[in-house]
Amino acid sequence: MSALSDLHATLDPSRRSWVESANDPTSDFSIQNLPFGIFSDALNSTRRVGVAIGDRIVDLAVLEGAGLLTVPSSAAGGNVFVRDALNDFIALGRDAWRSVRIQLSGLLAHDHATLRDDAELRSRALIRQADAQLHLPVQIPGYTDFYSSKEHATHVGSMFRDPKNALLPNWSEMPIGYNGRASSVVVSGTPVRRPNGQLKLPDQERPVFGACRKLDIELETGFVIGQGNALGEPVACENAEAHIFGMVLLNDWSARDIQQWEYVPLGPFNAKTFATTISPWIVTLDALEPFRVAQPVQEPEPLAYLRHDGKHGFDIALEVTLRPQQSKQPTTISRTNFKHMYWTMAQQLAHHTVSGCNTRVGDLMGSGTISGPTADSCGSLLESTWNGKNPLELKEGGVRAFIEDGDELTLAGWCQGDGYRVGFGTCVGQILPALK
Amino acid sequence: MSALSDLHATLDPSRRSWVESANDPTSDFSIQNLPFGIFSDALNSTRRVGVAIGDRIVDLAVLEGAGLLTVPSSAAGGNVFVRDALNDFIALGRDAWRSVRIQLSGLLAHDHATLRDDAELRSRALIRQADAQLHLPVQIPGYTDFYSSKEHATHVGSMFRDPKNALLPNWSEMPIGYNGRASSVVVSGTPVRRPNGQLKLPDQERPVFGACRKLDIELETGFVIGQGNALGEPVACENAEAHIFGMVLLNDWSARDIQQWEYVPLGPFNAKTFATTISPWIVTLDALEPFRVAQPVQEPEPLAYLRHDGKHGFDIALEVTLRPQQSKQPTTISRTNFKHMYWTMAQQLAHHTVSGCNTRVGDLMGSGTISGPTADSCGSLLESTWNGKNPLELKEGGVRAFIEDGDELTLAGWCQGDGYRVGFGTCVGQILPALK
Repeated sequence: MSALSDLHATLDPSRRSWVESANDPTSDFSIQNLPFGIFSDALNSTRRVGVAIGDRIVDLAVLEGAGLLTVPSSAAGGNVFVRDALNDFIALGRDAWRSVRIQLSGLLAHDHATLRDDAELRSRALIRQADAQLHLPVQIPGYTDFYSSKEHATHVGSMFRDPKNALLPNWSEMPIGYNGRASSVVVSGTPVRRPNGQLKLPDQERPVFGACRKLDIELETGFVIGQGNALGEPVACENAEAHIFGMVLLNDWSARDIQQWEYVPLGPFNAKTFATTISPWIVTLDALEPFRVAQPVQEPEPLAYLRHDGKHGFDIALEVTLRPQQSKQPTTISRTNFKHMYWTMAQQLAHHTVSGCNTRVGDLMGSGTISGPTADSCGSLLESTWNGKNPLELKEGGVRAFIEDGDELTLAGWCQGDGYRVGFGTCVGQILPALK
Repeated sequence: MSALSDLHATLDPSRRSWVESANDPTSDFSIQNLPFGIFSDALNSTRRVGVAIGDRIVDLAVLEGAGLLTVPSSAAGGNVFVRDALNDFIALGRDAWRSVRIQLSGLLAHDHATLRDDAELRSRALIRQADAQLHLPVQIPGYTDFYSSKEHATHVGSMFRDPKNALLPNWSEMPIGYNGRASSVVVSGTPVRRPNGQLKLPDQERPVFGACRKLDIELETGFVIGQGNALGEPVACENAEAHIFGMVLLNDWSARDIQQWEYVPLGPFNAKTFATTISPWIVTLDALEPFRVAQPVQEPEPLAYLRHDGKHGFDIALEVTLRPQQSKQPTTISRTNFKHMYWTMAQQLAHHTVSGCNTRVGDLMGSGTISGPTADSCGSLLESTWNGKNPLELKEGGVRAFIEDGDELTLAGWCQGDGYRVGFGTCVGQILPALK
């Protein structure tokens, strides 16, 4: 068990690391962050658990082997850091995650000599990110996607239903969500193939089969379940954050034309199942603690099972860029913030489980598209171009109504501290042309 | 590789077994069937692979240990029958499933002496079903549910939308489906707790929180993926059946009141995620071969990617009974047949993957509620009672508009051969009262 004071020490804004690059105020991976991921490299193709620090990755198995890192429980049968997914480590429980994070924060602190001054061990334990390959950080048993931005739901409702009653009556009463497809969640950097599907063109009676013409992003975050709940045993809203291991960036790629034709009455299916991209580093909820803010005022007051005291929003700056294949300069197409989200992660999880639905370690829960109040803070092209009517101008010329083949889309996100960042890195995908 | 003639021999209607109970013409588990499942028993709590024959289970690990059963590939690292799910066995591929089924059909045939006349081995290899516990047969990476009965979709559309345009325009163009929740798929016999959730009562402006008042079944079958497809590589309709390992019965429990309030615009969520029950035995597509029939005529002709030659329906008799807790006599509340399904399993899988979506071994695909053309052939109480307006009369008195606490619902299904059956056993669930 780790003292809360140790946990607070890891968040001390003045803490600096002997890994110099981590002290760069624009680095996502300050010593205050310490996100978890799965990596391999050219010298060692075994997938294993790493923690990002500056431009390096700490190989936790090496530190454990050297006796510098103790895992509080070996319930998973030992070697919990030599795995191709974080699930077994996460399953050790919150005390274990916290303890490992606290130990690492100490080992990497500028005044801690053990690892700093051991060149041989350091060369084995610290891998350059540039030399590493990052993999999907968790095996995802279930993926759920919510729809919790009021601005996004209002924009979509205005476009496809009725601008005067854009928000459906159920939206203000519950965090609307649906089951997504876990099999096609891929890690940042994986190319994404434009899907084929049924398109209903306005001038034709029957649908045609062909490549999606309205390919879009959805800028989201996702949270990863750290502690599941048994079937029939709901998670209380007040206690829900204790079930969350951490957060990632998430791009819920969407084929708008396929979606519009297929989604009534059972929701989006082929329009979303071809790919969902997440960032490789899971930022722990502990690291996000200093950036906690109040969620928006909820009116009407939610039903009792959706109530929680205190602040449950997080101040996470978010940004999307688009870079055409031939361009050097990406164009920023959205700037927004996670703090705008109406429903909190705790409310999402409480709602998800209130029926008795069980969750499992590694389950991924998407926030829903994160849109802010202005046109340049929309989390999708559908919204920012108003279904293609107002194309965006690109930096090096040309415009975009929707995504074109070869375009590279990059999500970025970070919490801005005083002189340091707790960041997510990026979540990147380039579009390949559709299969013939 | 097994000769097709060997495969045909397993389906010979005249073949009889020395396991006498398998020759009972009403037994679901004739020697023509040989479905796969996972079981344990009081003497051996290890979960392992079994095959049902009459009132017995064949322990495949025992037969393999005795040298009577050869598994064509040991890619899974051996001991593929001592697992808590069928996935590793299924992953060996269709030649392996077929070979094992052919070998078993031989070993169990009435004129085959090896096992029949070895009392010691027989006592170890054949376990009474009455003494065994059956478990979830596969680990399910993804669960998808379709909506492929024209009668069901028409009934629901008439009730909730417009009786004159009951079928939405997209329904006749594609097998509409949505992602379900894999975590809460349970095996037959698991009690099901009535869910709590948001209910929108007609006389109140805001929803209330409480126990579902319109709890329902959905009579479905499901198919289990035997060979996955890679992301970005669709499965062609003509080839889709080769990706299917077999079929189960599936009860897609549904909270109609929760569903009606939550499902627009993203589809059912909490109304379905609390539980889905499947039968423990997976009947292979090979065993179903003699019961292949033509699917209904599809008009308009489907788009090219949904076309296949030949017969792709299956003649599977289906039945649902309801037994109140205090009753001895169950009441049959539905009799229908899988052959009524408009969209075929092959079309469902082709549609699911046409966007590039990948599937994995063990994925479960529900058919959607199977309703026939008459009131007594509806696959849900929603339809047979017309949303509760016309309650059903029960054999021992009383009526049911929807399911009450303590009610036990049982699905059964079988293919009727000449003097034998290829059956699914039952898919049972009893309702526990909601949590307070």
